[in-house]
Amino acid sequence: MKILIVNPNSDQEMTDLIQKSAKAFAKDEYDVTCFPTPGAPKFIETYEDQVNAASGMIQIIKENEAAYDAFIVACHCDPNLDVIKEISNKPVVGIGEASMKIASMLGHKFSVITTSPHSIPMKEAQIRKYHLEDYLASVRAPSDQLADADEDTKYLETARTAIKEDMAEVIVLGCAGLSGMDKHIQKALNVPVLDGVICALIFAAGFVRYEISTSKACRYNPSLS
Amino acid sequence: MKILIVNPNSDQEMTDLIQKSAKAFAKDEYDVTCFPTPGAPKFIETYEDQVNAASGMIQIIKENEAAYDAFIVACHCDPNLDVIKEISNKPVVGIGEASMKIASMLGHKFSVITTSPHSIPMKEAQIRKYHLEDYLASVRAPSDQLADADEDTKYLETARTAIKEDMAEVIVLGCAGLSGMDKHIQKALNVPVLDGVICALIFAAGFVRYEISTSKACRYNPSLS
Amino acid sequence: MKILIVNPNSDQEMTDLIQKSAKAFAKDEYDVTCFPTPGAPKFIETYEDQVNAASGMIQIIKENEAAYDAFIVACHCDPNLDVIKEISNKPVVGIGEASMKIASMLGHKFSVITTSPHSIPMKEAQIRKYHLEDYLASVRAPSDQLADADEDTKYLETARTAIKEDMAEVIVLGCAGLSGMDKHIQKALNVPVLDGVICALIFAAGFVRYEISTSKACRYNPSLS
Amino acid sequence: MKILIVNPNSDQEMTDLIQKSAKAFAKDEYDVTCFPTPGAPKFIETYEDQVNAASGMIQIIKENEAAYDAFIVACHCDPNLDVIKEISNKPVVGIGEASMKIASMLGHKFSVITTSPHSIPMKEAQIRKYHLEDYLASVRAPSDQLADADEDTKYLETARTAIKEDMAEVIVLGCAGLSGMDKHIQKALNVPVLDGVICALIFAAGFVRYEISTSKACRYNPSLS
Amino acid sequence: MKILIVNPNSDQEMTDLIQKSAKAFAKDEYDVTCFPTPGAPKFIETYEDQVNAASGMIQIIKENEAAYDAFIVACHCDPNLDVIKEISNKPVVGIGEASMKIASMLGHKFSVITTSPHSIPMKEAQIRKYHLEDYLASVRAPSDQLADADEDTKYLETARTAIKEDMAEVIVLGCAGLSGMDKHIQKALNVPVLDGVICALIFAAGFVRYEISTSKACRYNPSLS
Amino acid sequence: MKILIVNPNSDQEMTDLIQKSAKAFAKDEYDVTCFPTPGAPKFIETYEDQVNAASGMIQIIKENEAAYDAFIVACHCDPNLDVIKEISNKPVVGIGEASMKIASMLGHKFSVITTSPHSIPMKEAQIRKYHLEDYLASVRAPSDQLADADEDTKYLETARTAIKEDMAEVIVLGCAGLSGMDKHIQKALNVPVLDGVICALIFAAGFVRYEISTSKACRYNPSLS
Repeated sequence: MKILIVNPNSDQEMTDLIQKSAKAFAKDEYDVTCFPTPGAPKFIETYEDQVNAASGMIQIIKENEAAYDAFIVACHCDPNLDVIKEISNKPVVGIGEASMKIASMLGHKFSVITTSPHSIPMKEAQIRKYHLEDYLASVRAPSDQLADADEDTKYLETARTAIKEDMAEVIVLGCAGLSGMDKHIQKALNVPVLDGVICALIFAAGFVRYEISTSKACRYNPSLS
Repeated sequence: MKILIVNPNSDQEMTDLIQKSAKAFAKDEYDVTCFPTPGAPKFIETYEDQVNAASGMIQIIKENEAAYDAFIVACHCDPNLDVIKEISNKPVVGIGEASMKIASMLGHKFSVITTSPHSIPMKEAQIRKYHLEDYLASVRAPSDQLADADEDTKYLETARTAIKEDMAEVIVLGCAGLSGMDKHIQKALNVPVLDGVICALIFAAGFVRYEISTSKACRYNPSLS
Repeated sequence: MKILIVNPNSDQEMTDLIQKSAKAFAKDEYDVTCFPTPGAPKFIETYEDQVNAASGMIQIIKENEAAYDAFIVACHCDPNLDVIKEISNKPVVGIGEASMKIASMLGHKFSVITTSPHSIPMKEAQIRKYHLEDYLASVRAPSDQLADADEDTKYLETARTAIKEDMAEVIVLGCAGLSGMDKHIQKALNVPVLDGVICALIFAAGFVRYEISTSKACRYNPSLS
Repeated sequence: MKILIVNPNSDQEMTDLIQKSAKAFAKDEYDVTCFPTPGAPKFIETYEDQVNAASGMIQIIKENEAAYDAFIVACHCDPNLDVIKEISNKPVVGIGEASMKIASMLGHKFSVITTSPHSIPMKEAQIRKYHLEDYLASVRAPSDQLADADEDTKYLETARTAIKEDMAEVIVLGCAGLSGMDKHIQKALNVPVLDGVICALIFAAGFVRYEISTSKACRYNPSLS
Repeated sequence: MKILIVNPNSDQEMTDLIQKSAKAFAKDEYDVTCFPTPGAPKFIETYEDQVNAASGMIQIIKENEAAYDAFIVACHCDPNLDVIKEISNKPVVGIGEASMKIASMLGHKFSVITTSPHSIPMKEAQIRKYHLEDYLASVRAPSDQLADADEDTKYLETARTAIKEDMAEVIVLGCAGLSGMDKHIQKALNVPVLDGVICALIFAAGFVRYEISTSKACRYNPSLS
Repeated sequence: MKILIVNPNSDQEMTDLIQKSAKAFAKDEYDVTCFPTPGAPKFIETYEDQVNAASGMIQIIKENEAAYDAFIVACHCDPNLDVIKEISNKPVVGIGEASMKIASMLGHKFSVITTSPHSIPMKEAQIRKYHLEDYLASVRAPSDQLADADEDTKYLETARTAIKEDMAEVIVLGCAGLSGMDKHIQKALNVPVLDGVICALIFAAGFVRYEISTSKACRYNPSLS
C-alpha cells in the first residue's frame, strides 16, 4: 500500500517533519511519502494562501493518481479538500477533518490549539463545515503571556488552559507544523492529544484496505456536471 | 460610484448577459462593469472549476482595487468569496449569499432553482455555510419530464413545483446564467423571484454609500497572519 | 421613490433623530419621512410597549399604503414586524433584521450593543428568530463601570470590549436611539458599525427599485386565512 | 385555587367549548373560568388578529391579577404570551407551548393538526420559538380530498396520515376550536392526542400548587427596563 | 390515584427524603410511594451505576405495573428512562426531563446546579438529548472556594453565581439528593427553583388524570421489534 | 495487537458471522476475537434488550481488560457504549458511531439501512447523540413490497431507494447481522457501503497503534465521581 501525503505548502522543512511523523507511525506496514506543493506559499495562513496552493496540489494528485492508493492533505485547515475528493478516485483524507472527527469519539468536547489568533475564526468556520461545532470546547492560540516561552511550553500551557478553563477533554494540534508534539503534551496533561497527520493515516490506510473511497454519487462526481 | 462585477467564468456571452441585467437595474445611478475571468473555465460547475477561476479572479481584484468602489462575484456558488473578501478593502458581495439572505427576509422559506441535479448537494453545503439551512424549502433542478421543454418553461415549472410541493414562498435563481428570468417567473407565480446579480448590486451600492466594508478585525485580515 | 419610516414610539425627539440620519443617507435620491406612532409609549422597552404600539403602527401603514413605496419599522426590536409584513403589499423592513443580516455578511461574528441589560435576553430571542444565533459574538450593554461616562464613551467602550473579549468583528447598534453614533465608533475601532436605520434604507430602496416585496404565498397573506 | 382561561378571541361559542373541556378536566379540584376577550376578533387567524387581541387580553389580566392564581392563554398560536408573562406575577401558560412540550415527553416526534394550510408556516415559526423543531414530524391541515367530510373525520384522517406518512407518535390539536376531539382520535388511532387546554391546566394547576411562576430575573421583568 | 416513585439507588435515607418532599406536595390528593431500587448502587454517579440500577428498576416496574397509575424515575440523570417508558403502559416521567422542560417555560434560560464537576459533561449530554441545549445558561457545581461551606450555602451561592455570571433566570436542582432545598433558594434569590421530584409529580398526576401515556406507535413499543 | 469484539447478544451464529468478517479484514496484522455476551438476549431490538446485555458486557470487559488492547461493541445501536468507555482504560469503539462518522467523511449525506421500521426512531435518536443529524439522508427499513424477497435483494433494493429518493451518497449497514453484505451492495450501486464491524476495526487498530484512548479528563472517569 502506498499513501501520498500532500503538504499544501512548499516548505521542505515542514515536509520533512510531516514525513518523519508519518513514517514513524506507518513503520513497515505501508509506504508513505510526503511531497511539498510546487508553486505554493511557504506557509498556509490566509484564504489566498489556500487557493494559491490549489493548482500545485491538483497537479500532484493527477500525476500520482495511478501510483498511490490514497491521498492525505496535510494542512490542518484542509485547503482544497473538496477539490481533491472530487478529482481523485482514491480515498482522500484531510488532517483537520480526520483529527477532529476522531476527537469527537474520545471525549465530551475537544479544543484545537492553533499557532495564531488570526486562525481562530477560520478554524471555527471549518469546524462548522464538519458539523462539529457542538463538540467544540474552544479554539485557542498561545496567549501574549507565553510570547517568550519556548515552543513546547507554549502549546503545552495553551492546552492546559483549554482543559482547565474550557473543560476540553481532548486536544487537537491545529497545525501540521506542530506534528511531533502530541506525545509530549499527552504525557504531561493526561488527555488524548491528536496529531492530524497520524489521524489521517489511520483513515487512509483503513479506507484502502477496506476498498472504500469518496462517493461518486453526486457531490464529488465532476462527470455529472 | 463604480461597481465591478467579476464573472468567475471566461464566457463572454454570460458576461454580456450579467452586464445587461446589471445595467438595466443600475440605470444612471452608478457605473457597473462586468469582466469575464481570464484563464477561468467556460462554466463553473465543479469544485475544480472554482479553484481554477481563483488566480484570474484575484488578478482582476488586485488590478482594479483602486479604480472600483465595490466588487461582486457573479456565480451563484460564490467561488473564492472568502479570498476576495480577504484581499480587498472594498465591499465584496457574492450573488449566492446576497440572494439567499434577501430571500430570508421576504418569506417563510425559499427554494433555489438550479440547472442540474449535480449542484444540489453543493448548493446545500453552501446554504449551510451561510447558516440559512432552516430557511430552505428545497433545492430543485428541472425534472427529467421537463427535458424537452424550452428554458423558460423548465425553470418556471420547477419553481411552481417548489412552491406547491415544498411550500417555498420565495424563489432564488441559482445560477448567474438564469439572469433575466426573474420577472417572467415572478409574474407567473406571484412570489418574489430573485436574480442574484440584482440582489448583490443592492448590497454593493448600499455598502459603498454607507462606507462599510468587510471587517478587517481578524478572519479576513491577511496582515494578521 | 417615497419611503416611510415608522418610529414605533411616540417620541418626537427620537423621530427627528431617525429622520435626520435617514435624510443624510438618502440625499436627493429618494424621499424619506419618519412618523412617530400615535398612542404608542414614549420608548419601547418591554413586550407590553411593543403591543401597545401595534394599533398606531397599523393605522399609519393602512393610511399610507398607497402613498409610499416601502415601509421601515425603526425600533431595533422590530416590534410588530410580522404584522406589518402581513398587512402591507409594499416592502417592509425592520431595522433589527436589516442590520443583523448585513452584519452577517461583513465578518465572522457580530455583537449587538444595547442600552440596558434588560434587553439582552429579549435581543437573544430576536436573534434566534432570524436564525442568526451562530453568527452572534455577544449582546452587551454598558457595564456599571461606565455609568458616569458620557453617551459616546459608553457605547464606544462597550463595543471595544465586545471586539476584544468576544471576538466580535462587526458592531450593531441595538437601538434606534443610538442612530448617528456609527461613524464615530467605526473610526475609533476600525470595524464596521451598523446603524439599523441606514441598513433598512439600503434594503427598502433596493426592494422598491427591484420591484420585490413580502411573499404573499402563505405566511404573510391574511386573505388565505 | 382559581384559574382564569383567556380565550383571545371574542367568540362566545368557542369560549363555552373551552370552558366545558376545562371544567370536565378540573372537576371539583379547582375553579376554572374562561373569558372571551373584549374587542378581539371573532377568530385568531392572522398576525393582525393576534395584536388586535392584545389590549383586551392585557385588560383581563390586569383586572383579574389579584383574584386568580394562574392564567392560561387559550389559542394554539399563543398570541401575546410574552406580554402576559411579563405583566403578570402569577403563572402564565399558553396552550400551544404546553401541548407541544408535553408532546415532546410522550414519543419520538409529534405532528400538529391545524385547521387551514395558512397556519402551517406560522405554526412552524412558533415551534422554532420553543426550540422544538427537531421534535416535529409535521404540521398538517386537512387535505382537499377531505373537504366534504364531517369535522370528526377530517381531523381523524389528517392525524392518521401524519402517523403513517410522517411517523408522528403523538398528535397535537393545533386549535382551541378542536377542543374535545382528543379522546375520539386517541381511541381510533391509539396514540396520545393532546388538547392544549387540558395540557395548560396541568401546568397551571401544578405551578400554583408548587408556588412557582415566570422568572422576573430579567426577560419578563418590565421594572428593569 | 397511586403514583410510584422509583429511586434508582438503594439508599434508604434518600428514599425517605424523596418520599417526604413528594408527600408534602401531593397532600391528600393522591397516593405517592417511593421505593429504593434493590441491588442498585448507593448513589448514581457513573454510567456504570446507571446500568447497575436497571434490573432492579425493571423488576419494580413489572411487579407494580398493575397496582400503580404512573411511575417516576427519581434521579436527575434519568437513568434507564427510555427502558421504563418502553416496558410500561402507564405514564413514566423522569425528574431530569420534567424539571428542565418546566424550566424552559418559566424564563429565558436555566442553570442546573449539580453536586460535583464530574457530572457537568454528563448533564450537558443529557440536556442535548432533550433538545434543550439552547435554553441552557450553564451547568454548575459548587466551586472549590465553597468546599467548607454548609450544604445550604454551597448550593445557594452556586445558584447565585449562575444568575449573576451566566444570566440564568431559572434554577434546576440537578440531584434528587437536593430535594427540599428549592424554597430556601427561591426565597433568597427570587427566581423559580425547581425540585425535579415535584416537577415530575405535576406531569405524572396530570397524565393520569388526562389518560395519556407514552406513545406505543413505534419507538417505545417493544412488541413491534 | 489483540482486539476483542463484544457481540452484545448471546447468539453464537451472529458471533461467528462478525468474527468471520473481522478476521477477513484483520488478516494476520492483528488478532481479533469475538465473544457473545453471557446472559444477554439473543437479539438486541429494544431498550430493555440493551440494558439486559449490560452486566454481561461489563463482565467481559473487566475480565479481559488486561489481555486485550482495544474493545469493539458490535451492535449497531451501540448499547452501553458510554459505560464501556467509562470502565475501560483501553480504546473502545462502537460500530454505530464508527460507521456513521466514517460515512460523514465519504459523501454529502448517508442513509442507514435497518432491519425493521421499529428501529427507525431509535436510530434517529442515536444519530442525534453523535451530532450527525444534518449528515443524514434517511433511515430506511425494507418496505412491505420486499417482504418476500431474499435477504440480499431486500437490502440492496432498500439502499437503491435511499440513493434515488433521499439522495444518499453513502450507505451504512445498520445491523451487525448484515455484516458481509457490504461489497455486494457496493458493487451493484457504486457508492461506499459500510459494515460497522470493519469501520470499528479501522479505529480500534489505529487507536492502539497511536496509543490514544478515551479521555479520562471528566465525563468517562468514574474515579472523579
